[in-house]
Amino acid sequence: MLSNPASKYIPFKPFTRDFSERTWPSKTITKPPIWMSTDLRDGNQSLIEPMSVERKLRFFKHLVQIGFKEIEVGFPSASQTDFDFVRTLIDDKLIPDDVTIIVLTQAREDLINRTAEACAGTKNAMIHMYNATAPAFRKIVFNMTQDQVRDFAVAGTRMVKAAMAKYPEVNWRFEYSPEVFSTTEPEFAVSVCNAVAAEWGTSADRKIVFNLPATIEATTPNLYADQVEYFCNHVNNRENVIVSVHPHNDRGTAVAAAELAVMAGADRVEGCLFGSGERTGNVDLVTLALNLYTQGVHPGLDFSDIDAVRLTAEYCNQLPVHPRHPYVGDLVFTAFSGSHQDAIKKGFAQQKADQPWEVPYLPIDPADLGRSYDAVIRVNSQSGKGGVSYLLENEHGLNLPRRLQIEFSRAIQRVTDETGTEVNGNAVYDIFKKEYLTQNTPWSLVSHQITTSSNGDNSNTFIIEAELKNGDEVKKVRGQGDGSISAFVDALNLPIRFMDYHEHALGSGEKTNAVCYVELRLGDSATGFGVGIHKDIVTASFNAVLSAVNRHINNG
Amino acid sequence: MLSNPASKYIPFKPFTRDFSERTWPSKTITKPPIWMSTDLRDGNQSLIEPMSVERKLRFFKHLVQIGFKEIEVGFPSASQTDFDFVRTLIDDKLIPDDVTIIVLTQAREDLINRTAEACAGTKNAMIHMYNATAPAFRKIVFNMTQDQVRDFAVAGTRMVKAAMAKYPEVNWRFEYSPEVFSTTEPEFAVSVCNAVAAEWGTSADRKIVFNLPATIEATTPNLYADQVEYFCNHVNNRENVIVSVHPHNDRGTAVAAAELAVMAGADRVEGCLFGSGERTGNVDLVTLALNLYTQGVHPGLDFSDIDAVRLTAEYCNQLPVHPRHPYVGDLVFTAFSGSHQDAIKKGFAQQKADQPWEVPYLPIDPADLGRSYDAVIRVNSQSGKGGVSYLLENEHGLNLPRRLQIEFSRAIQRVTDETGTEVNGNAVYDIFKKEYLTQNTPWSLVSHQITTSSNGDNSNTFIIEAELKNGDEVKKVRGQGDGSISAFVDALNLPIRFMDYHEHALGSGEKTNAVCYVELRLGDSATGFGVGIHKDIVTASFNAVLSAVNRHINNG
Repeated sequence: MLSNPASKYIPFKPFTRDFSERTWPSKTITKPPIWMSTDLRDGNQSLIEPMSVERKLRFFKHLVQIGFKEIEVGFPSASQTDFDFVRTLIDDKLIPDDVTIIVLTQAREDLINRTAEACAGTKNAMIHMYNATAPAFRKIVFNMTQDQVRDFAVAGTRMVKAAMAKYPEVNWRFEYSPEVFSTTEPEFAVSVCNAVAAEWGTSADRKIVFNLPATIEATTPNLYADQVEYFCNHVNNRENVIVSVHPHNDRGTAVAAAELAVMAGADRVEGCLFGSGERTGNVDLVTLALNLYTQGVHPGLDFSDIDAVRLTAEYCNQLPVHPRHPYVGDLVFTAFSGSHQDAIKKGFAQQKADQPWEVPYLPIDPADLGRSYDAVIRVNSQSGKGGVSYLLENEHGLNLPRRLQIEFSRAIQRVTDETGTEVNGNAVYDIFKKEYLTQNTPWSLVSHQITTSSNGDNSNTFIIEAELKNGDEVKKVRGQGDGSISAFVDALNLPIRFMDYHEHALGSGEKTNAVCYVELRLGDSATGFGVGIHKDIVTASFNAVLSAVNRHINNG
Repeated sequence: MLSNPASKYIPFKPFTRDFSERTWPSKTITKPPIWMSTDLRDGNQSLIEPMSVERKLRFFKHLVQIGFKEIEVGFPSASQTDFDFVRTLIDDKLIPDDVTIIVLTQAREDLINRTAEACAGTKNAMIHMYNATAPAFRKIVFNMTQDQVRDFAVAGTRMVKAAMAKYPEVNWRFEYSPEVFSTTEPEFAVSVCNAVAAEWGTSADRKIVFNLPATIEATTPNLYADQVEYFCNHVNNRENVIVSVHPHNDRGTAVAAAELAVMAGADRVEGCLFGSGERTGNVDLVTLALNLYTQGVHPGLDFSDIDAVRLTAEYCNQLPVHPRHPYVGDLVFTAFSGSHQDAIKKGFAQQKADQPWEVPYLPIDPADLGRSYDAVIRVNSQSGKGGVSYLLENEHGLNLPRRLQIEFSRAIQRVTDETGTEVNGNAVYDIFKKEYLTQNTPWSLVSHQITTSSNGDNSNTFIIEAELKNGDEVKKVRGQGDGSISAFVDALNLPIRFMDYHEHALGSGEKTNAVCYVELRLGDSATGFGVGIHKDIVTASFNAVLSAVNRHINNG
């Protein structure tokens, strides 16, 4: 039984009486904040398996492509790996001129010097210094008074200025975080920041970023907004200060905290894609940006190919995005209930291209994100086991990936719409066969031959020669890649982007076949699946690719 | 590129001018709301594979055990399976006297009658009727005026009263939902509810539940709170009305919406464990309850064995809980950063049992949830591939489950604390072997024999006879179960609760071994892992069980 919390947990109250200056509940957000991605710092440091350099580079490039202009790239004084990564970005000239890299440091002279050194020769860099200001840290961790903490921050700022002066080629900026702002007395946080700003010499040409981290989310989000509004009202020279927030999600309300904080005056938001970061994660920048989008405000970030963003994050973080994650989860653009499906159908029917979006149960047009809507159909059955995927798995051994389970509902719905009757269990496999397994035109595979050669660096080059039938014509094609599938895709010479791949055995013993599911994009079309079955696992995967290509062509 | 949203998406504003009655931002939550679980209705209807009766029963029993007094059990008029499930609950006397079941229905006479019929003979039941009141639905789906919609709701209420009268043995209650309250004009929602209350004959002895669904989350959570406060201020006979909210998570702010709505006057919250439900899910009741707990308010729900709750939800929903999910995710009680680990260590050192909780970076004592804190140690390495799990996988073929990866950090930390040096790659496997693979005392397996008999209903009974060494003594034991592991656990005759199980091949060809990882709880201890390796997969799993048991005993 949960113990009585009343004596163990003290509710946090930022102000001793009601916050009378509050105006944010009457505000609305009419422009996007400045976005800062900390995926490569806060996100990376909280992974069981930190990113390799290759994964970090892929993530950085994708962040740039999405449109981030401020990217925290590491903690170079704490880790040689981080230092080397920052050097790679700079030495290989991978940072666009309009992008500022941010590097985190504690307020110690050797660490600050090392941090500045990491950025030598770059165009735009921001040193982000933090120290702990919250009472629990002053008492438990550092045994310091308020005055000592303030002096410590000012001394650190002086060291940052000195370290920056050694690299005059860099367009330097400065960010300061009073750590666990969310549990620091608001008056004290303002007092420390005002002292730091005075030391920095803040002016219109020399703005400072004050970042107010909810390092641990400690309150309902309205109280965090109160704290931010208080800070904005009382910090000196507000016009020369960029107020930034960095919410974590310990209470599951980081997105709300960021939104209310922006209403309360914050100019900038730090977070990660899909809410990566220490413990429960940082605020999720994808959700924040798309929440703005559906309120008519362009976020200035491009999530029009949301699945590609998801794949990059999943690959680099080695953690999944949840199937119910807003805007991107596998289940988000589905409807299971008949009445929901009916309302959505009527909504699509009346929706005109040049009119405001008004489809029930869909707060955003899935097409804006490169997604599509699916009505998930239950199969009529007395058993209570009505699911299509249950039938395919139990009666045919097919273990469909979740997104294929959803996509296949579309084919079932087409049949129920055409016949006007419900589909029964027996019909499901027939529909699956017709939709995926017998898609032999226009493309089919006649024969193929693969040769592999070692590159000497633990990788191989695969060369394929294949005979393909396209309509009545048989063509010989040739392709190469770092695996058999990529070589085959190369040989096809079509605008294919490969999204995902699953394979499993079907049956057992002598009669075992392999079944392969691939998801790909052909040109600018939505993603779609193909399925191949063959005794040989490689041939099964080629059949799956051709099934997907043929479906794209045949279904338009 | 994302298109310009300004002409496509119209920002939703519930009030045409600022909401001047607003008082909720100055309120705090001092008692828990009435909790209503809709896991078996909204949760179940949005699963790819709806729950079988066995899964539904397991979920229902766990909800009762947690302490839910109001449980929505289905939509019996829409589904024979739901109807039969409600009958099973009633006929098998599975509903405690202090629990009310809720059954959802549309406002149609045949459906209402069928819904009441499903509840015949039960003690406490609530009929939950809904109809669409939002402008988009009036226009697109039903083509009805406001007056027609209100009359429709009143007529439905009359039918509900008539249907209830046929079953006087039931202590009936009534819940009404104006659907998509969140996008309905607040004045109109109040007007419909007042008409429904008049027809129902609301009084102090005959209270009515008005549930205000954010069927789709349409705004920042503060505006939902405004809508709820308006409703509370303007509904007739507020004292005889239970105001309920039902937030969905389309904008990722359902938890905040529920909290601010309770501050705005809501008495009751509907949601699901871990945020199951249509699309992005309903509000997550676990997070809401534990947010209250850490503010000193007992939620009246028992989540002291959070892992058991997670396992039930994952088993029944066949969907995972995300590793960063607040309070329960695998990564939530971890710290990766050295400075975080240091602060937490100092926090634990100064924390006294009878003093308020004050450990940096841990908003809740993990022990209150049956969890433990883990510092995740990086291994010193030049390669940038510093993870322990990477080394074990790449050099030893061991693919550890995520929770074991975290747990194993504890053993590494013990060594680094003892030796004062960092662990290098070579030492990792030695520590793993000592911690998991050579845990042979007090219990070890000498021999075993299994016989299987068919029960004729597609299940088997496994009987095991084994010789076990306990210290110097060799004992013959016997056990049975529906699988070999459960038979072995039965034979051990120890207070074991089995949590999780993973197995994979190790090596290939003639030399293939199986490695098995099990997670179990011995008595009231925290969960712990054991690992077994053997040529035979069954023996590997027995070794894993004994490894876990021995670790529990030896580590205290």
